[in-house]
Amino acid sequence: MTSLFTAPAPSRSYDPSLAHRRSQTTLTLSDATGAPLADRDVLVRQRDHAFGFGCIGFELIDWINGRSQDAAADAAVAQRWLALFNRATLPFYGGRFEAVRGEPKTAELLAAARWFKDRGIGVKGHPLLWHTLSPPWLMELEVEEIDQALRDRIRREVRDFAGVIDTWDAINEVVIMPVFPVEPNGVTTLARQKGRVAMMRLAFEEARAANPNITLLLNDFDMSTAYECLIEAALEAGIQIDRLGLQSHMHQGTWGEEQTLRVLERFSRYNIPIHFTETTILSGTPVPADISDLNDWQVSPEAWPSTEEGEARQAEEVEAHYRRLLGHPSVESLTYWGLPDKDMWLNAPGGLLRRDGTSKPAYDRLHQLIKGEWWMPETPLRTDEAGRLQFEGFLGDYEVELDGAIAPLTIHAPGAAHLGLRLPLA
Amino acid sequence: MTSLFTAPAPSRSYDPSLAHRRSQTTLTLSDATGAPLADRDVLVRQRDHAFGFGCIGFELIDWINGRSQDAAADAAVAQRWLALFNRATLPFYGGRFEAVRGEPKTAELLAAARWFKDRGIGVKGHPLLWHTLSPPWLMELEVEEIDQALRDRIRREVRDFAGVIDTWDAINEVVIMPVFPVEPNGVTTLARQKGRVAMMRLAFEEARAANPNITLLLNDFDMSTAYECLIEAALEAGIQIDRLGLQSHMHQGTWGEEQTLRVLERFSRYNIPIHFTETTILSGTPVPADISDLNDWQVSPEAWPSTEEGEARQAEEVEAHYRRLLGHPSVESLTYWGLPDKDMWLNAPGGLLRRDGTSKPAYDRLHQLIKGEWWMPETPLRTDEAGRLQFEGFLGDYEVELDGAIAPLTIHAPGAAHLGLRLPLA
Repeated sequence: MTSLFTAPAPSRSYDPSLAHRRSQTTLTLSDATGAPLADRDVLVRQRDHAFGFGCIGFELIDWINGRSQDAAADAAVAQRWLALFNRATLPFYGGRFEAVRGEPKTAELLAAARWFKDRGIGVKGHPLLWHTLSPPWLMELEVEEIDQALRDRIRREVRDFAGVIDTWDAINEVVIMPVFPVEPNGVTTLARQKGRVAMMRLAFEEARAANPNITLLLNDFDMSTAYECLIEAALEAGIQIDRLGLQSHMHQGTWGEEQTLRVLERFSRYNIPIHFTETTILSGTPVPADISDLNDWQVSPEAWPSTEEGEARQAEEVEAHYRRLLGHPSVESLTYWGLPDKDMWLNAPGGLLRRDGTSKPAYDRLHQLIKGEWWMPETPLRTDEAGRLQFEGFLGDYEVELDGAIAPLTIHAPGAAHLGLRLPLA
Repeated sequence: MTSLFTAPAPSRSYDPSLAHRRSQTTLTLSDATGAPLADRDVLVRQRDHAFGFGCIGFELIDWINGRSQDAAADAAVAQRWLALFNRATLPFYGGRFEAVRGEPKTAELLAAARWFKDRGIGVKGHPLLWHTLSPPWLMELEVEEIDQALRDRIRREVRDFAGVIDTWDAINEVVIMPVFPVEPNGVTTLARQKGRVAMMRLAFEEARAANPNITLLLNDFDMSTAYECLIEAALEAGIQIDRLGLQSHMHQGTWGEEQTLRVLERFSRYNIPIHFTETTILSGTPVPADISDLNDWQVSPEAWPSTEEGEARQAEEVEAHYRRLLGHPSVESLTYWGLPDKDMWLNAPGGLLRRDGTSKPAYDRLHQLIKGEWWMPETPLRTDEAGRLQFEGFLGDYEVELDGAIAPLTIHAPGAAHLGLRLPLA
C-alpha cells in the first residue's frame, strides 16, 4: 500500500477577509448567434452557496414520513431549515437503524433523504461505523461474525442509498473506539482485536467498493494529537480520506479564537478538505468541566432552559465560529447539530429555534450572514456595449435572467473570473 | 509492508503475587561422569535479575572519564549505583553528543558504556532521534539534508557502539514531534514534512540496517490514546518495535494504582514487552498541575529541597510503583531517572540519594526489595540421595558452588523447573 501522507501545502492559511470565498466576475452575455447582448437589463441572483452550510435533519424524518405528532410545528421547522441550510446529515446509528437484525429502516431514511435531495440539499449519512449506538445484537456474535456483519451493513447502506446519499461519515470516533469504556459493544470488541487502522480500512474499503464515486469522511471529536496520529496512521496505510471530519460540540464552553485557529492550523496540514461536522453552541449554562463524557450529563429539558443572556451570547459565538471557519480555506462545510431545541441531544438548549418554535437571535444572525452578508440577492444589472456586466459574490450557484429566459451559472474559483453565457440557452 | 499489529493475547494480566517472576527449581547435580552428586553440601546464590532494574548513568560519565570534580563522592555514588541496578541508560542527545557537527563525543560515551558493560550491566542508548536537545546546526539545513544528517547520525552511533550498546531508544516522543512548540528545531521541521510514521521508520530502519541484532524501543511520555494511535500506526506500517518504552516521570504527582494498572492494561495489549524507561518520584513538593511542559519549571536546587516527609512518602511510592510494575507480566524493566539529587533534571529532588550523598529511605527500601525480598542470597543447601536440591527464586542468573567449583545457571521461565547441572563443568 502506498502512503497517502503529503507534506503540508504552505498556502492554506487563515484569512478573515474571506477573499478565498469570493469571486469578482465579469460576465459576457451573448445571444444564440453569439452576438453580444449589449445594453440590456438583466437580473442576477444567487441560488446556492458552494460552502456547505449544513444541519442535521433528524427531527424532520417522522414528519417527512407522515408520522408527525404536530405537523404544523414540524412544517414550520422545515421551512426555517430550508431557509438557512444547503446540506443535511441523516442518522444511520446501527442500533437504531437496524435494532432488529435484518430489519433496517431503509424505506423511512430513503424517503427523508429524497425529500432533502428534491429540494437541492446535499445529504450525508452519519455514520457507517461507530461503537456508540451500535446494534446490540452484535454482542451475541463471534469476532469474525461481527466483522462480517459490519461489512455487510456498510455495503448495504451505501448501495441502497447510492444516488441519494453519496457522502458518508465512514467511521466515527476511532480514537476511543478500542478503549471505549461506557458500555460493552461489538464494535469495541472488534476494534480491540483488529486495531484502529484495520477498523478504518474496513469502513473505507467496504464503502468505496460498494460505490466508487462516494465521498468518505473520517470523523472525530478528539482534537488532540491522538487524532493527528490516527490520521497519519490511516494515510500511511493508504486509506483514502476524502474529507476530514472535525466535531465541535461546545457543551462545556466555546472554543474561542485561539483554540479554533490552532485546530485549523493543525488539521489543515494534511491537505484534506475539512468538514466541521457537528457544531453545538449553547444558549444556556454549560456542562460542568468535570464531566468527561457528555452522555453522563442527564438533565431534563425544564432544568436546562435557553436564557435571554445565553441566547445573546450564543448569537455572538455562532457568528464568530462561522466567520472563523469560513476564514480558513481548508474548511468546506460546517454542520450545526440541530435546528430546534426540541429533541436535541442531551436536552441541551443548543438549537437555533426555541422549544416554542420561535427563532433565537443566533438563527437570525446566521440568516443575516448566510442569506445576507454572504449572499447576493436578486440584483438588477445592465450589460455594457460589449454585453458585459460585473458583480462580486460568494462562490456558488447563480442565475442570470433576461427577458424571462434564465441561465444557470456556477462560480467555482475565487478571485477575478471572466465568464461567458448565451441566452437563451441553446 | 505487512502489518505487525496482533490481537491482544488474553493471558497477560496483572498478578501482584509476582508468581510470573519466580521459579520453583528442582536441580539435579551430577559429576563429570554423569553420576548423581548425592548427599552433598552446596552453596546456591543469585547473581543477577532477569528483570531490568535500570538507572541512568549520566552522572558517572565524567568520573569514568577521569574528569570528576569530586572523585571520592562520585566513587561512592558509583558504588551505590552498582549495589542496586543491572541496566544503565546513557545520554545521546544530539545537541550535546554532537554540538559541533562532525565532533561526536564517541570516545567519552564509549568509555562510559564499557565501564558499565565490564561490570555486567546492560547498557541502553537514549535516544537516537528526538526533537528536544537536537543539534542546533540542523536548523541551518534544508529538509532533505536534515533527513540525511539524522540517518547518518543513527547509523554512525549504532555502528560505533555495536557490541557495547545494542539496545537503543530509537526515537523519543513522536506524539508531539511535529507540533512541538517550545523551540524551533530541525527534527520538528522534518517531522511536519514527513509525518510521524516516516520519522519512526527512519529511526528504526536506519538503526536496524546498521546492526541487525539490535533491540529498539519506541519511547514516549504521552500515555493517552495518542500513543496508542501512534503505536498502531507504526505496527500497521510494518515497523518492528522490539520493546515499548513508557515514561513515568511523576513530577506533578504519583500515578497511583488505578492509573498505573490502566496504563499497563492498555499498553500491554500490543504483545510487545514493556520497558518503563524513565521513572521519577519526588521527595519534595510536586510541580504545580498547571505547568504543562515540565521544562518550564525553573527552580534552584535550594528552593526545591528533599524533605523528611517527602522522603517517607517517596519510599512508599517507589515501593508501590515497583511492585505494581513487576506485577504485570508484560513489564521487562524499570529505569529510575537518576540516583543522586545532584545534577538531576530540573533540579528536582527525585533521586534516591541526597545532595550530600546519603541514602534516602527510598534507596534503602528499593535495596531491600531488589537485593532482599526478591533476591536469593548465598544459601547452603544439600542434595538428596538422587543428587537433587530445590529452591525458589526470582528469574535470573544463579551460581551453584560445590567444593570450590562454581557452575552458572540461568532460570528463564516461571513455575516449576527441572534442571540438571554437571560439576565440575566439562
